[in-house]
Amino acid sequence: MDRRSVIKNAGIAGVLATGLAPAVHAQANVRWRLTSSFPKSLDTLYGVSEVFAKKVSEMSGGKCQITTHGPGELVPAFGTVDATKAGTVECSHTAPYYYFGKDPTFAIGCAIPFGLNSRQMTAWMYDGNGLKLTREFYAGMDIINFPCGNTGAQMGGWWRKEIKSLADIKGQKFRTGGFSGKVLERIGGIAANIPGGEIYQALEKGTIDAAEWVGPYDDEKLGFYKVASYYAYPGFWEGGPQLDLHVNTKAFAALPKEYQAIIEAAAAFAHTNMQAQYDVRNAAALKRLVANGAKLFRFPKDVMDAAFKEAMALYSELSASNPAWKKIYEDYANYRRDANLWFRFTEATFDNYMQSVKL
Amino acid sequence: MDRRSVIKNAGIAGVLATGLAPAVHAQANVRWRLTSSFPKSLDTLYGVSEVFAKKVSEMSGGKCQITTHGPGELVPAFGTVDATKAGTVECSHTAPYYYFGKDPTFAIGCAIPFGLNSRQMTAWMYDGNGLKLTREFYAGMDIINFPCGNTGAQMGGWWRKEIKSLADIKGQKFRTGGFSGKVLERIGGIAANIPGGEIYQALEKGTIDAAEWVGPYDDEKLGFYKVASYYAYPGFWEGGPQLDLHVNTKAFAALPKEYQAIIEAAAAFAHTNMQAQYDVRNAAALKRLVANGAKLFRFPKDVMDAAFKEAMALYSELSASNPAWKKIYEDYANYRRDANLWFRFTEATFDNYMQSVKL
Repeated sequence: MDRRSVIKNAGIAGVLATGLAPAVHAQANVRWRLTSSFPKSLDTLYGVSEVFAKKVSEMSGGKCQITTHGPGELVPAFGTVDATKAGTVECSHTAPYYYFGKDPTFAIGCAIPFGLNSRQMTAWMYDGNGLKLTREFYAGMDIINFPCGNTGAQMGGWWRKEIKSLADIKGQKFRTGGFSGKVLERIGGIAANIPGGEIYQALEKGTIDAAEWVGPYDDEKLGFYKVASYYAYPGFWEGGPQLDLHVNTKAFAALPKEYQAIIEAAAAFAHTNMQAQYDVRNAAALKRLVANGAKLFRFPKDVMDAAFKEAMALYSELSASNPAWKKIYEDYANYRRDANLWFRFTEATFDNYMQSVKL
Repeated sequence: MDRRSVIKNAGIAGVLATGLAPAVHAQANVRWRLTSSFPKSLDTLYGVSEVFAKKVSEMSGGKCQITTHGPGELVPAFGTVDATKAGTVECSHTAPYYYFGKDPTFAIGCAIPFGLNSRQMTAWMYDGNGLKLTREFYAGMDIINFPCGNTGAQMGGWWRKEIKSLADIKGQKFRTGGFSGKVLERIGGIAANIPGGEIYQALEKGTIDAAEWVGPYDDEKLGFYKVASYYAYPGFWEGGPQLDLHVNTKAFAALPKEYQAIIEAAAAFAHTNMQAQYDVRNAAALKRLVANGAKLFRFPKDVMDAAFKEAMALYSELSASNPAWKKIYEDYANYRRDANLWFRFTEATFDNYMQSVKL
């Protein structure tokens, strides 16, 4: 066992040393740390990191151990990319659109308004050009990315009053996950990017007027229905947001090939398992929320149309000014067009029929 | 290395001996054979077995090798369950509804008319009771099942003439995948269960009047549009058919725990990858088929309604006569009801909007 390859309880110096270590052997013990952007109270969003780490441990016979850490334990909620790039941690789990301030291109691999739905996002990653193109983007910051979770189409957030037309959006201070705020602001709202663990307090205090997080299951846990009872759909800015496992490229390169393959498959397992959790648990949570007073409303068509128009205008502007955005978005948009044409036939007509009959 | 644990080029006697072998060590070499129900010409349906085997090999550092075999090489297309049960092969890949003649309960873990869609099926398996309940069912035949692929909602097959009303179904001899034939027959059709590799010839010769297989990408490869140009949707009998990896329980128990976990995760990777392949490749193939003369038509409402009514009646009859069906179907139907209620809000309104705008 190579002494330099063992990172048990290592501080930053120890972790950095690993990056330079030669490939360890399959029998070597590996100790990694993972930092998550998500609160530990959420068994879905934080739990996906635990599922990933457990699978890695099982497949390696306990020899590859990854400890998971919540926001603030090692680095802040929105510090995962910097920490992974620097090698402060070997890996992290996040929603890449949190980092749109560094570069809006981060958002394409997560969710952009009027983007791909969950299945389409996974398809573009696994069998389209999505993973290849986003890996080129991340290579510039010493990170390799793996799809690791999707929430499905999200709800449109909790509002103190029902939004009945586009005019009602004006001046509303709305917590939303990063990049989508750019579109919200173009239709008159004011965006706030606040970590999940701090939203309830901001909404209760009135620092913000409305807030979106994910969907019924997580939103119920965070208690938003107690302070804002109008629950909008669809969350048009997040039709299928993908979460990522980010791994420091030097740490990854130092692993034996077996462990590299194990990390890829464990992320795939966690990816699929997370969507499954939402698809089971949201169904039950929605019923409870309605019983507890949540009032569902659908965003009016003028809101959807104005947001769609502004989103497309924003993407054109970004394509003109940002070559990384342009390269990835063009491929993404081509697949989005073809996929929606195909899904319109058998998927949509099957689903719509099933939603129309008494089951 | 335990001599009894190595099954390289083993005949039936060698394979059976393995079942009795003590657990091998992580370093031991394992050689397994997988038989598939699907033609080797299909890189999706047959390819999923190859993806699975490749991942197992990578994660085990080449020490766990699974060779894949097409129909007829070791056993016939519809002989996979018997072969896996007997230990003739250690594992197999199939669409369980092919075995509805043994017990209709097989079909629930694959697809039944007006059943779960792809995401819902995975959700019921991973986070609902689906895997637990179907594993109880398979335990009685010395098989452990793993979700390993889904095609998404299938098309409604290739017809020589457009079906304009329920009356047009009468007397049509239609190739369909197993259990769904029971519903087709209740609305006046005649069902034929023919392996994928033999459909084209039957359709060309006129032995059958119409045939469904999967969707644009596979159907194009098999060339059906050349002999029957009307292409129906939705394939209401297959809203999200799941394929399974079936493993002989003794062979599985004889593996070290690391390899057991590797097999589970490799199946999960292949499961997700296969749906991604369809979601990318169907989109492109549909355009080519239409350019080559395929004429799309939607099943009329009276066909959908009659089939739905007969399907529900059939499920009630089966629940009254078959305890295994009753136990699994009740749980499945409860989740189907809740899931469709939930998907109706944000998923459906998001998708429908995206399908309505110019992209």
